Amino acid sequence: MSTDELMSALSQKALALLREDAYKIEQLIQVQMETLTNRRCPLYEEVLDTQMYGLSREVDFAIRAGLIEASEGKEILNKLERNLANLYEALNKQQSE
Amino acid sequence: MSTDELMSALSQKALALLREDAYKIEQLIQVQMETLTNRRCPLYEEVLDTQMYGLSREVDFAIRAGLIEASEGKEILNKLERNLANLYEALNKQQSE
Repeated sequence: MSTDELMSALSQKALALLREDAYKIEQLIQVQMETLTNRRCPLYEEVLDTQMYGLSREVDFAIRAGLIEASEGKEILNKLERNLANLYEALNKQQSE
Repeated sequence: MSTDELMSALSQKALALLREDAYKIEQLIQVQMETLTNRRCPLYEEVLDTQMYGLSREVDFAIRAGLIEASEGKEILNKLERNLANLYEALNKQQSE
């Protein structure tokens, strides 16, 4: 294996791990979206925020360690943040109805 | 550079980054230790806990990404946790006096 191949394998591994962790948060958001009929759950939002913070620290570390591009990390976080914003918007709309 | 050298350089970089982050938390603990005469500050403890959580996620990621050994990560976290436990013990002792 050449150094280029090793670097590429490590980067792909790092990206796969980050996407896996992002997917878990995605699932948490989905669950909350599907149970919108239930009343708002502050504990759930706290869990989501904590998970988002944890992922952002992982992404930041992967960038600093030279494993992924800053743009790749930003894309993962941005996508999740949009989903989270949609969830909170839906929750707020429901609450004001 | 051989693949062994690249892997070693990446591991050392990862460890240096984690120790740097651990050092920042260490500093936060020190500041709180030095101001023990002040009254206990729940917000400060919240910040410390959040920082510890963030670091533990970074360490876990570095292990899964194959950059560091599990034992190396554990050592960094254990050392910090001992310091944190000492801080809380000192705070509790002071509070009961």
